[in-house]
Amino acid sequence: MSNPGTGRVLLAVNAFHPQRWHELLSAEREVVLERNTDTDASITYAVVWKQKPNLLAGLPNLKVIFSVGAGVDHIVEDATIPADVPVVRVVAEDLTRHMVEYVVWRVLDHHRQGRQYREQQRLRAWHDIDQRNADDVSVGIMGFGHLGRAAASALMALGFRINGWARSAREMEGVTTYAGDAGLVPFLNATDILVVLLPLTKATTGIIDYKLLKELRRRNALGGSVLVNAGRGRLQKEADILRALDDGTLKEASLDVFEIEPLPKTSPLWSHPKVFVTPHAAATSDAEHLVPVMLGQMAAYERGEELENLIDREAGY
Amino acid sequence: MSNPGTGRVLLAVNAFHPQRWHELLSAEREVVLERNTDTDASITYAVVWKQKPNLLAGLPNLKVIFSVGAGVDHIVEDATIPADVPVVRVVAEDLTRHMVEYVVWRVLDHHRQGRQYREQQRLRAWHDIDQRNADDVSVGIMGFGHLGRAAASALMALGFRINGWARSAREMEGVTTYAGDAGLVPFLNATDILVVLLPLTKATTGIIDYKLLKELRRRNALGGSVLVNAGRGRLQKEADILRALDDGTLKEASLDVFEIEPLPKTSPLWSHPKVFVTPHAAATSDAEHLVPVMLGQMAAYERGEELENLIDREAGY
Repeated sequence: MSNPGTGRVLLAVNAFHPQRWHELLSAEREVVLERNTDTDASITYAVVWKQKPNLLAGLPNLKVIFSVGAGVDHIVEDATIPADVPVVRVVAEDLTRHMVEYVVWRVLDHHRQGRQYREQQRLRAWHDIDQRNADDVSVGIMGFGHLGRAAASALMALGFRINGWARSAREMEGVTTYAGDAGLVPFLNATDILVVLLPLTKATTGIIDYKLLKELRRRNALGGSVLVNAGRGRLQKEADILRALDDGTLKEASLDVFEIEPLPKTSPLWSHPKVFVTPHAAATSDAEHLVPVMLGQMAAYERGEELENLIDREAGY
Repeated sequence: MSNPGTGRVLLAVNAFHPQRWHELLSAEREVVLERNTDTDASITYAVVWKQKPNLLAGLPNLKVIFSVGAGVDHIVEDATIPADVPVVRVVAEDLTRHMVEYVVWRVLDHHRQGRQYREQQRLRAWHDIDQRNADDVSVGIMGFGHLGRAAASALMALGFRINGWARSAREMEGVTTYAGDAGLVPFLNATDILVVLLPLTKATTGIIDYKLLKELRRRNALGGSVLVNAGRGRLQKEADILRALDDGTLKEASLDVFEIEPLPKTSPLWSHPKVFVTPHAAATSDAEHLVPVMLGQMAAYERGEELENLIDREAGY
């Protein structure tokens, strides 16, 4: 085995600011933005986000792939990535913070009736809208990993009741947790505001459909169920969300992710009065925070330490 | 002294839902909504919010006035209230929670660029706006009592840096505190988002003026200073806020309170694109939470215990 410390880093973080990544990685590593032959033997590490297919195929000395961001569907769905190369999910604390901010922001805007107050302001109407207490509102978090639990903590501190749902049971103090297929309907039946932070896998693709939304708790006029999706766009069926909004199954939605991104100009979501759209901006990864984490992991790997945060490509997350 | 337990409660909580208050207080006390003579000797307690002048004058057996809500300017400014009757400020935990919710909601909406994203949605623009990290943003809280400190805790948990300012020094772990006139300019110079939770006193009337806003920190395009007023309307000079918004001194404002309430239809604040208006709805008091607190205090008083949360009418809070 060649000394991996002398190998190069292939950098392919499409849609971020590649110059900044290049600069910071170059402080300790030689960085290339393209592979220069079909079998580029100089490449030891790859740092990727939404890489093109075949980018990672046939690199004889590729030791570790670093996948930037919480979602790993760009890895799982790329069959050209060699099965035996470990993939590390690189998540810095700033991404978690950004996601928690987004979730708390959207939950509060729905809870405190931001849309209604903005409409009243437009009409110059001075009218105090009845307000529920947070301890009478259940936020249900689908996907209860690191991000989901961090969001749960922040919302609990504000007084909300929290339900958590995941494939397999994950306990957390103060949270009512549900697991697997059997737990899904009870979880939805007890949830007013649904926050989706699921990974995109075969099992979760299209999971947010009309039937699921119909199971959310709907109460009096003060209530009404709400959807917040900050996971992945292909978790949701947008036609079903529109149907649910229009027939009152859903009161409002905040969507950061979409079936097709960028969201096509023709999508009715853009102009729907009950929908708040952001351009997959809930939690971006910042080179300043992530590059030091990766450089540290490369050095640890070269000292013979175990890699952390490995992706289970079979499970899809 | 007549047995105060046999006396009546005079209830005058204008602008709330008086029926509900009446119902809940009546479970343990005889309640009247008006005094029936110039010297109504049957009245022992008064429960008030924004009472009319003279309502509390000349009641020979009035023992305690319960003032509902965080602000007490309706007490301090009413010279017809006998100086020797103690006034208890009644604040239930739900009011604190509502206020913390409002502050966190507004800070996050400014921080996460809600206005800009709503505008982008209107234009169907898919464009990720550069986002500062919370730990690079200082929220300055003016008025650092119970509510201010609770808001500080919630914002710190989200990663914001916190400055606190009050008349006299009040320490809090993790917060940079400033006090008095000497501390005001340094406090403002270190603050990006100013949250006003001050009581209305002679010293604070009109304190939020152009000169003060000019001292707020203004940084690069990502920054820009923000005003959130959830205290009292007469703390602010609205003409100065408009001037500051229009010349770029302020980037945005969220105002829950106004010099004149209801905010007149002719006010330019209603339609200002950088202002978010709510109708003094940040933190309302809920009879369900407050009445048990008051009934408990009446009973304790009659057992000879000390009254809690007494207002210092000289100081104005």
